[in-house]
Amino acid sequence: MYRTHTCGALRIENIGEEITLAGWVQTVRKFGAITFVDLRDRYGITQVVFNESLNKKLDEQPLGREFVLQVKGKVIERSSKNLNIPTGEIEVAVSDFTILNKSIVPPFTIQDETDGGDDIRMKFRYLDLRRNTVKKNLELRYAVNRSARNYLHEKQFMDIETPFLIKSTPEGARDIVVPSRMNEGQFYALPQSPQTFKQLLMVSGYDRYYQVVKCFRDEDLRADRQPEFTQIDCEMSFVQQEDILEMFEGLIKRIFKDVKGIDYTDIVERMSWDEAMWQYGNDKPDIRFGMKVCNLKTPAIVRGEREDQSALINEAGFNVFDQAETVLAIAVPGISEYTSKQTDELTDWVKRPQIGMKGLVYIRCNADGNYKSSVDKFYSEERLKVIADAAGATKGDLVLILAGAEERTRKAISELRLELGERLGLRKKDEFRLLWVLDFPLFEYSEDDNRWVARHHPFTSPKPSQIETMINNAPEISDPAAYLEHPYAGIKANAYDMVLNGNEIGGGSIRIYQRELQEKMFAALGMSPEESKHKFGFLLGAFEYGAPPHGGIAFGFDRLCAILGGSESIRDFIAFPKNNSGRDVMLDAPSTIDDKQLDELSITLNVKR
Amino acid sequence: MYRTHTCGALRIENIGEEITLAGWVQTVRKFGAITFVDLRDRYGITQVVFNESLNKKLDEQPLGREFVLQVKGKVIERSSKNLNIPTGEIEVAVSDFTILNKSIVPPFTIQDETDGGDDIRMKFRYLDLRRNTVKKNLELRYAVNRSARNYLHEKQFMDIETPFLIKSTPEGARDIVVPSRMNEGQFYALPQSPQTFKQLLMVSGYDRYYQVVKCFRDEDLRADRQPEFTQIDCEMSFVQQEDILEMFEGLIKRIFKDVKGIDYTDIVERMSWDEAMWQYGNDKPDIRFGMKVCNLKTPAIVRGEREDQSALINEAGFNVFDQAETVLAIAVPGISEYTSKQTDELTDWVKRPQIGMKGLVYIRCNADGNYKSSVDKFYSEERLKVIADAAGATKGDLVLILAGAEERTRKAISELRLELGERLGLRKKDEFRLLWVLDFPLFEYSEDDNRWVARHHPFTSPKPSQIETMINNAPEISDPAAYLEHPYAGIKANAYDMVLNGNEIGGGSIRIYQRELQEKMFAALGMSPEESKHKFGFLLGAFEYGAPPHGGIAFGFDRLCAILGGSESIRDFIAFPKNNSGRDVMLDAPSTIDDKQLDELSITLNVKR
Repeated sequence: MYRTHTCGALRIENIGEEITLAGWVQTVRKFGAITFVDLRDRYGITQVVFNESLNKKLDEQPLGREFVLQVKGKVIERSSKNLNIPTGEIEVAVSDFTILNKSIVPPFTIQDETDGGDDIRMKFRYLDLRRNTVKKNLELRYAVNRSARNYLHEKQFMDIETPFLIKSTPEGARDIVVPSRMNEGQFYALPQSPQTFKQLLMVSGYDRYYQVVKCFRDEDLRADRQPEFTQIDCEMSFVQQEDILEMFEGLIKRIFKDVKGIDYTDIVERMSWDEAMWQYGNDKPDIRFGMKVCNLKTPAIVRGEREDQSALINEAGFNVFDQAETVLAIAVPGISEYTSKQTDELTDWVKRPQIGMKGLVYIRCNADGNYKSSVDKFYSEERLKVIADAAGATKGDLVLILAGAEERTRKAISELRLELGERLGLRKKDEFRLLWVLDFPLFEYSEDDNRWVARHHPFTSPKPSQIETMINNAPEISDPAAYLEHPYAGIKANAYDMVLNGNEIGGGSIRIYQRELQEKMFAALGMSPEESKHKFGFLLGAFEYGAPPHGGIAFGFDRLCAILGGSESIRDFIAFPKNNSGRDVMLDAPSTIDDKQLDELSITLNVKR
Repeated sequence: MYRTHTCGALRIENIGEEITLAGWVQTVRKFGAITFVDLRDRYGITQVVFNESLNKKLDEQPLGREFVLQVKGKVIERSSKNLNIPTGEIEVAVSDFTILNKSIVPPFTIQDETDGGDDIRMKFRYLDLRRNTVKKNLELRYAVNRSARNYLHEKQFMDIETPFLIKSTPEGARDIVVPSRMNEGQFYALPQSPQTFKQLLMVSGYDRYYQVVKCFRDEDLRADRQPEFTQIDCEMSFVQQEDILEMFEGLIKRIFKDVKGIDYTDIVERMSWDEAMWQYGNDKPDIRFGMKVCNLKTPAIVRGEREDQSALINEAGFNVFDQAETVLAIAVPGISEYTSKQTDELTDWVKRPQIGMKGLVYIRCNADGNYKSSVDKFYSEERLKVIADAAGATKGDLVLILAGAEERTRKAISELRLELGERLGLRKKDEFRLLWVLDFPLFEYSEDDNRWVARHHPFTSPKPSQIETMINNAPEISDPAAYLEHPYAGIKANAYDMVLNGNEIGGGSIRIYQRELQEKMFAALGMSPEESKHKFGFLLGAFEYGAPPHGGIAFGFDRLCAILGGSESIRDFIAFPKNNSGRDVMLDAPSTIDDKQLDELSITLNVKR
């Protein structure tokens, strides 16, 4: 061993001990004949002192930043203590040293606040990983991993590895495929998730399964997506939805406790998908703050089921509201005194193409009890007050109103709410609020193909009460414009998402376990019997030999770590991430391969661009 | 929850409780009006009893093997107890039942001894996984996984995930490659091991790393090889070889303790590669039994370094020995009375093409003190005694002697030794003997290419005392026939294998951490500077910024589990293994993919066969 202690270990109790340290030179400071070096390793920083007797050796072998250095010496008390670091009461009086390896000057400073841009830090990722902030992220990631495994182990879950070279069954995202040399012209796929395998394990009787496992998806990468990502993947047999919710809110609470020291004793809130969309315009609402959506005008399709308050805004001659399918409001607390420059800026914000609204109506609920609006000429102050009251506004609030087509307007009001929550500091990084969103729709309508697609995945079970609806109705949609009237549009699934601070951190469902229902589901998604047999014959087969009721969940491990670490970016929590083009710029991968490799795989390139 | 207890939980203490169980019907036995069912789940089997009041319901809903059944009832004491199973003192008097799912008749019996052949069990792997023997294997695998993680965690190792989509740098085995859709004409590779990443992590300062990780190799599959396999992969900084040996024999001892309940307090034996080859003809000797190799005639190349006993056999007019490069003997205990039929069979055994010997010479050391041999006409009884003594034989032993070319003969004597160890019951499944084999050669000679290849991998460090030899000599081999005389042939590496019962379960090395030495190594392996920069530029770059001394090891997780489970086959310890053609016969993968998929990847098929 090149050391007796780490650079984070020595304390006042060690004074007088002869020790050996090894680590990286963080800083070199000379004061006259004395040289101070901060020596850094994974565990901390220790100040080591070279007195003048070592000056000759230091002249011959000068130290530089990031040199790997071994020092032998005696632990002594520091005259000026640094109580900000655990080793700050001592230093090491060096008796001898060895330079284990040199370093050229790094392309950026290895400090918390670095001068390196994103690109250079990705290229020299091995240096970026030395920075304390990045190290803390990976330590947090490991702590979450460890905590999750411990909890699941105690609950009798078994880690069972599932294969990486599987069969391509694209449904939803594109598969990443792998040519097989030994099976000419054939391909494996890398798993988008171990979904069917964990279900097979349930059929096999392994009633509590987990894995912390890499998954793969060939998507056009949006910011902060990675072609390979990690899931905490779990499945249980002989359970109902309630059992799963309890088990896995327990998991997340345990992680809060182990990793953040937080006792999350609150009951985890639950909300149906319908309610989430109605109250927040979003299926993963951030419930750290209020500002719920006020549905002033309800689209025709849900009228009857939902309260319609359009009387409040109708017949005022304001065409924008009269012609809109949907009118939605939020009451933003404490900003009634926004200047017109500020409200104009908000208007511009909602008009950006990403939001796509035509305009923004506001009502100021002034501190003096007056109401002022951008639509004063259509609405009397009395009517403004009624509308503001409906939105839940009180003195000092600013009511923001959007109008337009249902889907876009609802999405926009959600974005606006989140933006204002952010601006007003209501989305606190150190506050964690969990939420279960339940009862997702089983199907989504695909306009492109005029057919149903699975909202979650094709293995998700409909609500038991709606199985009949599914079995007794054909999936065909005769009138695309009226797809919402098709019986399938109303079928809800036994599916659930866990939402943390407005991010979906996990999702799952109770699965189909009956062959007939699974076949019906494949048919509903437009698969012919031949196709479903070709792709999923093994699963349909397995369901014939005594498949138990089962369900599960998968957590997005990268995302969970990022949120717990108070970051927006999953990339900061991955040791060797890829960039937005799916490239590893450190390795320079992907890259070309030899003709011999191509030939052995019986493929040729057909490059078009 | 569909159950209050598992099928392994109920005991005599539970008598009188109203409980609910769910599981699979193992057997149905009718005795008059009473029906007994063994209900099975992951945790055990519980006998449940249907009395005549349920006969009508049973008639309407008959039970069959592998049906998924939920029963409600009361725990009662059994009249005839079965003390072979933990639940054998009780049974459940069923008050009501629900068939949760039916099963058609399985294609083989779900029992320890099954009637299903290999192929059918692979196709219906989800049923094979129900068998207790297979379940025990996966449970053992999980226990090993858990034990290893706990030990490494306690030793401050960090699990850090490394990427799966990396760069193709074939060196040794073929890479499995993955076409990139977004980077046209370019490919990722799946990692053969996380080798370079774990070294980069050391450069980054994460001084103790581990991962239980899938690795991939596109080899022509021999029996019991899998294209994807799992490693326990570890790396440490600031260590010498001794530190690694101690740390990881600790790991294996901990696994013995946790998984098998074995206190392995013996010192782990160590042996140089030279000694292993000399004494056992094998670099992974099974030291559960003796029968060490007696080197009767030493090949010219090692004469001088090693004792040569050829005087014992020379000048007897026996051409076979006189002309052989190498003559090797083992003394097999207690079988001097083998019949000539038995010795003929052994002769046939060594003449098989897999062994490739021309014949077998034996000396019987009879119980009466006489010596008889198949070469009596060349050797007097006195000389036979001298030879037998040299081989360490005592009364009752049979000395077996092979002669021929060094490499083949040494391999053959090793095989013969193992075969006889097996036949004589000396390789006990419940005995575990660990061994470190040390000081492997750094290079191997590749006859095909007339160049050096890395014995372990290109990142392994030569012994410090031999670095000069490597630096100061060019790698070129002018005379292929005399490659053993090249200075590189004698260079030993700081490399080590852990051997358990004659199987290599892990291997590793102290790594090169100096750029110049790494470049020299790449050059020694015949890589041009351009090629080494293209393939490993990131690593060479990293070594310039303060790389610490480091080393590591990787354990073959599948193999380790198989040996601990007393099995020869790793396949039995993998949930969803592939067959010898790399196919998953359950999924029917690999398979063809759509033209659309090929087109998106810019590749076309070029199928030749």
